[in-house]
Amino acid sequence: MGLVPEVFSEEILQGLKGHISIGHVRYSTTGASNVINTQPLMVMHKGTTLAVAHNGNLVNSIQLRSRLEEQGSIFQTTMDSEVILHLMAKASQFGLEKALTETFSSLKGAYSLLMMTQDTMIAVRDPDGFRPLCLGKLNNGGWVVASETCALDLIEADYVREIEPGEVLIFHKDKMHSIFPWPGQDSHFCIFEQVYFARPDSDIFGINVYKSRKRMGEILAREAHIDADFVMPFPDSGNYAAIGYSQASGIPLEMGVIRNHYVGRTFIQPTQSMRDFNVKVKLNPVRSFLKGKRVIIVEDSIIRGTTGKSRVRALRKAGAKEVHMVVSCPPTRHACYYGIDFPSSTQLIANKKEVEEIAGYLGLDSLHYLSLEGLVEATGMEKKGFCLACFDGIYPVEPDKSFHKDALEG
Amino acid sequence: MGLVPEVFSEEILQGLKGHISIGHVRYSTTGASNVINTQPLMVMHKGTTLAVAHNGNLVNSIQLRSRLEEQGSIFQTTMDSEVILHLMAKASQFGLEKALTETFSSLKGAYSLLMMTQDTMIAVRDPDGFRPLCLGKLNNGGWVVASETCALDLIEADYVREIEPGEVLIFHKDKMHSIFPWPGQDSHFCIFEQVYFARPDSDIFGINVYKSRKRMGEILAREAHIDADFVMPFPDSGNYAAIGYSQASGIPLEMGVIRNHYVGRTFIQPTQSMRDFNVKVKLNPVRSFLKGKRVIIVEDSIIRGTTGKSRVRALRKAGAKEVHMVVSCPPTRHACYYGIDFPSSTQLIANKKEVEEIAGYLGLDSLHYLSLEGLVEATGMEKKGFCLACFDGIYPVEPDKSFHKDALEG
Amino acid sequence: MGLVPEVFSEEILQGLKGHISIGHVRYSTTGASNVINTQPLMVMHKGTTLAVAHNGNLVNSIQLRSRLEEQGSIFQTTMDSEVILHLMAKASQFGLEKALTETFSSLKGAYSLLMMTQDTMIAVRDPDGFRPLCLGKLNNGGWVVASETCALDLIEADYVREIEPGEVLIFHKDKMHSIFPWPGQDSHFCIFEQVYFARPDSDIFGINVYKSRKRMGEILAREAHIDADFVMPFPDSGNYAAIGYSQASGIPLEMGVIRNHYVGRTFIQPTQSMRDFNVKVKLNPVRSFLKGKRVIIVEDSIIRGTTGKSRVRALRKAGAKEVHMVVSCPPTRHACYYGIDFPSSTQLIANKKEVEEIAGYLGLDSLHYLSLEGLVEATGMEKKGFCLACFDGIYPVEPDKSFHKDALEG
Amino acid sequence: MGLVPEVFSEEILQGLKGHISIGHVRYSTTGASNVINTQPLMVMHKGTTLAVAHNGNLVNSIQLRSRLEEQGSIFQTTMDSEVILHLMAKASQFGLEKALTETFSSLKGAYSLLMMTQDTMIAVRDPDGFRPLCLGKLNNGGWVVASETCALDLIEADYVREIEPGEVLIFHKDKMHSIFPWPGQDSHFCIFEQVYFARPDSDIFGINVYKSRKRMGEILAREAHIDADFVMPFPDSGNYAAIGYSQASGIPLEMGVIRNHYVGRTFIQPTQSMRDFNVKVKLNPVRSFLKGKRVIIVEDSIIRGTTGKSRVRALRKAGAKEVHMVVSCPPTRHACYYGIDFPSSTQLIANKKEVEEIAGYLGLDSLHYLSLEGLVEATGMEKKGFCLACFDGIYPVEPDKSFHKDALEG
Repeated sequence: MGLVPEVFSEEILQGLKGHISIGHVRYSTTGASNVINTQPLMVMHKGTTLAVAHNGNLVNSIQLRSRLEEQGSIFQTTMDSEVILHLMAKASQFGLEKALTETFSSLKGAYSLLMMTQDTMIAVRDPDGFRPLCLGKLNNGGWVVASETCALDLIEADYVREIEPGEVLIFHKDKMHSIFPWPGQDSHFCIFEQVYFARPDSDIFGINVYKSRKRMGEILAREAHIDADFVMPFPDSGNYAAIGYSQASGIPLEMGVIRNHYVGRTFIQPTQSMRDFNVKVKLNPVRSFLKGKRVIIVEDSIIRGTTGKSRVRALRKAGAKEVHMVVSCPPTRHACYYGIDFPSSTQLIANKKEVEEIAGYLGLDSLHYLSLEGLVEATGMEKKGFCLACFDGIYPVEPDKSFHKDALEG
Repeated sequence: MGLVPEVFSEEILQGLKGHISIGHVRYSTTGASNVINTQPLMVMHKGTTLAVAHNGNLVNSIQLRSRLEEQGSIFQTTMDSEVILHLMAKASQFGLEKALTETFSSLKGAYSLLMMTQDTMIAVRDPDGFRPLCLGKLNNGGWVVASETCALDLIEADYVREIEPGEVLIFHKDKMHSIFPWPGQDSHFCIFEQVYFARPDSDIFGINVYKSRKRMGEILAREAHIDADFVMPFPDSGNYAAIGYSQASGIPLEMGVIRNHYVGRTFIQPTQSMRDFNVKVKLNPVRSFLKGKRVIIVEDSIIRGTTGKSRVRALRKAGAKEVHMVVSCPPTRHACYYGIDFPSSTQLIANKKEVEEIAGYLGLDSLHYLSLEGLVEATGMEKKGFCLACFDGIYPVEPDKSFHKDALEG
Repeated sequence: MGLVPEVFSEEILQGLKGHISIGHVRYSTTGASNVINTQPLMVMHKGTTLAVAHNGNLVNSIQLRSRLEEQGSIFQTTMDSEVILHLMAKASQFGLEKALTETFSSLKGAYSLLMMTQDTMIAVRDPDGFRPLCLGKLNNGGWVVASETCALDLIEADYVREIEPGEVLIFHKDKMHSIFPWPGQDSHFCIFEQVYFARPDSDIFGINVYKSRKRMGEILAREAHIDADFVMPFPDSGNYAAIGYSQASGIPLEMGVIRNHYVGRTFIQPTQSMRDFNVKVKLNPVRSFLKGKRVIIVEDSIIRGTTGKSRVRALRKAGAKEVHMVVSCPPTRHACYYGIDFPSSTQLIANKKEVEEIAGYLGLDSLHYLSLEGLVEATGMEKKGFCLACFDGIYPVEPDKSFHKDALEG
Repeated sequence: MGLVPEVFSEEILQGLKGHISIGHVRYSTTGASNVINTQPLMVMHKGTTLAVAHNGNLVNSIQLRSRLEEQGSIFQTTMDSEVILHLMAKASQFGLEKALTETFSSLKGAYSLLMMTQDTMIAVRDPDGFRPLCLGKLNNGGWVVASETCALDLIEADYVREIEPGEVLIFHKDKMHSIFPWPGQDSHFCIFEQVYFARPDSDIFGINVYKSRKRMGEILAREAHIDADFVMPFPDSGNYAAIGYSQASGIPLEMGVIRNHYVGRTFIQPTQSMRDFNVKVKLNPVRSFLKGKRVIIVEDSIIRGTTGKSRVRALRKAGAKEVHMVVSCPPTRHACYYGIDFPSSTQLIANKKEVEEIAGYLGLDSLHYLSLEGLVEATGMEKKGFCLACFDGIYPVEPDKSFHKDALEG
């Protein structure tokens, strides 16, 4: 629990023995964030250790878990990932490749994952390829697998290629080999990785995120013309779309709020007044600069609308005359069942309100969303290659809609 | 990890909701002491939580675990207790009582244990009754189960009775009922609880430990007469036998070493020189008092002999003229497979050496052990009711001798 | 020691009693950062408590301390601020105002400070006014004094006015009154507050820092024309000058490096390799974007040149074709004796090297500094009102040049 | 703050450089226990560091402090020891020996202390010699000074001699020399060190504490004959007097309560119910043993009587038929001004109540105190060599009775 350098001190890292390792970083916003649910999840089976680190979300884990429990399996966590280890153990008698095929054939949903035994590492990406997964090579010849390419930069590894949707890569001693246990199918990349989730210094699905976000801003400027004194992001959401919007519209870009990096973190549950104060400390509007100005805020997305509402209020309080908002994606109307940590659809503001209503709720002079076509255009790829479910409600893999991620916690 | 009041602050205790609870305190001297192996062990199964706290040691857990793993079960700890939860889960479809009978019929060894579901608590004592388990009643009418009666004193509960060997007690809502799923058999109480393990303020197997230890000292005085200036325990091992020895022999009792209670604990692995220093700080001989004296040390037992050796050396260094030792049990020659945390038999000094050799190794002028008959006599019970395996090598339940408690960690 | 919200939990804040308080935040980069040297510094004298929080640096503290020690005074810290408390105590017999006049007449250098007794708060700004100090009013009528106006924003206090150079403000019960114990003289505001030190959301010396920094960038664009694909800051130094430079030059602004906010802090001394890695984690160049580009970096200042050198190297490694740098102040050639935490002059790269040499050292295609006239023009104020010593070597108050801040530590 | 091995890890100890050092352990029961008031107290003066560790209590520190404050001295703690450093600094111009004579001539009260500069260690014992101080020699030739001889045992140093009342020992480089700056006078050793404060494994004022305490018990048995089943201490107060009482009276010694060493410590302020529970956990009566018995408790002293009251209650609750108490010193009727951490005289139960009343308050069948003559006889020394003020109210150095140790915190 904590940031990576707080948990993994240099001393700990240097104490690690061996030649393969896996790790996992989660950003958990829910109550289920506790030490039991940290990954990699690790179990013992027949004298070996089996570990898994899983990005994404299974949509049939409840059914699988229930079936396993009928057979007497017991669980130590509420994570969907735990069923994977049970299935692997049950199939282990048939040998590794067979066990992998067996296990992953029964899984539905999104999974870019790494597994590890005492001498083998396995990388798996689901056939839809919802989440990214890439392969790199270290200077010393070692292989490395990561969700995003920016991780390769940091350890000075060369980017080799994306792990393909439906591919299973097995690393054993010096060798790596690849199997494709599933029949070929279309991929459905999560477009929200481009909009919000991935880092701008990564190439995701072969596209540089910085460039595609900037391009979203440019297309927004084409779609939504507004008369204003300047364009501004709230650091750091919307930074890159704001640059694109400013360059395409000719309206100057300014940094109307200052981000304070010395906010610190409180590990105890802060009170609401403490949380409100922390938000203010973190992002302070430049009063002397905003006074009397007509401002366009560029946001990457609007989820619940609560953050946006307080941001608009802060700008008006600092003296802004007009506050407009442009959003670099369409209205987010549908829940995600594949691993983006959205609230349930009823909590999505665009699920219940029309654009004007949202503008009213946020206290804006005007509000403009990027069109779905504009969004896809910004990526330079074809629409059918993406999962756009959060915008259009079309789910590539049928979710169990009764499920949401806290369901297992009963 | 830590002492009870350090882990369970009043704030935490008051935050606990509900009407049943179980807990566990282990004193772990081995490498396997880590947070994963803390008890109660807790798992999830079919929407409920199942927990177990287990005192004792199973002798067939390796076989059971191996069979479960063949069926695809995965394990999260190296503890023998984990197989109990797997067996309970597998049998849960037949209802609670059937599942209990099924599960415990397949277990061999020592287990005084508590299990808990969300609405039921279950106490189980193995048919041999190796370890103690007692039932008490709180002022508010609630039931309480504990290993030792001294725990009842602290919470001002009344002692009701021992839970019988082979008894399963089920507490559900206001009701308690008892089943005896196994055919009747002779009990085999662990006599080492009386010698060393249990607290002197407890009644164990119906016998007060203080009294039986004092009586061991009295019988020792009868069996082993020594000419000396005084008798002394090393606090607090041997305190009560020393009192008995002094009263029966007429040789005065003195406190020749001072116990320092402010030793503190270091949570990092101390160096050997730090450990040696801590021993000295903890028990300091009273130089001015010991000088030129003939001393009898009373010890409850000798396991490896290393502690005894350094104690004798310390007394001689402080000026003692003669150092004799009497031990309130027979030579400890055989390993325990039922939960006393003995080293393997090859590390037991009495397994390899005769009494005179041990005396020589420890640097003593003389060494006397209590006879097995004297030990049994001190308890006032019959010999056949006890497990005396550590002294006579006769094991009531056939152990898997290839096993020792670290085996699972391979 | 630590960030404010880590040290002052809400629980601690709510436990504070009373109606006046002072606090201090220091950013210490030197070895003398330890708990003894934290401020406010607090002592006891004649049954009352006397505390001081001091921003700035005295230039005659060594002489004063030496004189006090001759008289038998003993010191608990190595901070120059401690002499202030000794002088106040020695003069306390003459009454508060006399003691203040007496004490501050003997001090030379920079001090914007707060003192507190059990019922009185005192704000003092030195006659040169080197450091800022402002007065605000809370909604509940209370007074508040702070270095920067952005602090007033956060607690929703109204900005009232600057505390004037040479002014002493005494707050006692409901009353505030002001004295000017020194004869009038010219002020010498530290221009480096505008360049680097102050926050852009503050108004310092009556000038908004965001605006003056943006104006520095505009003037830089006028003074130094460069042909390039884009302008970029290294977040967050140079952000505002980069905006000004981009708007004035017409060269687009981009965010070529990504700032990672989840770096965490290690409280143990990290190794060099750990530090290097942390820098990389914190600021990662966007490879796919920089490849083949001609880039202008905007920096606020160059002190030692080591940071700049590694930044240029990182951009080249990421594929930039040309790297130019513009700096929004003149070459920093002279040490500061008034509280800016500069290294000694010999460690300032511009003290020893000409501009071309610096460009070579940093690995740049070209390097341009803002002129001193351009810098002053950007503030909109007159040159004689500023201390420009770090650029032109003219010190308004004669420093003891043998002194540097570590001198007291022997 | 904390126990020695918690604060001084081996890593810290090994990191300490240099050839001289001083340390201090305080057991603080009052509110003034905080990190500011830890010793050694350390200050800076004229480029050197001056430190002091002080056992005992000055009786004129308020007057001295007040005079220093008139001259402008400021204080960082509320400890009486701080005036010593101020006086040393003021007199330092006259050279070390003169400064010592000057400083200590003005001090009144009890002080066994160590001072240290960067190259010199100084040990001082006041002319009355209230508190012990002894000199030892390490195997490597180094000198060591400690309050009690048991500290020498632990580091395997040889006991050389007591530092004499009124002696000042100066250690500089390889040399040690001794001065006696005061005119000769009678000593007044604190007899309460023998009764309660010192460790039984120490020789204090040339007398072994174990032996003198045992002798107190023997004389008590002569003075107070009681008919009972057994004698018992509450571990560990009264252990040694109980042994003496048992041997002299022929009444058997038993350990009727069991001390639990795994109590742990809570660093947060525990509630009253938590504190009560901890007492029960720490000392549990052996129910099965006490039932129906006539018991004599041996206590070293009775201060407030609250502890004794709860102990008697616990024994009665466990079934004891009669509870008698013998105390190995006379009634404690007067406050101590020389460093024993007594409450003020009005809180001493014997100050307000006669012996019978105290017996009634404690719930005893009978209560017997050792006579003053008996106490002195047990030490084997002459009465006039002791300070007996807590028993007879005769104070060798006139205390300022308006003073008590919290006075400075006003």
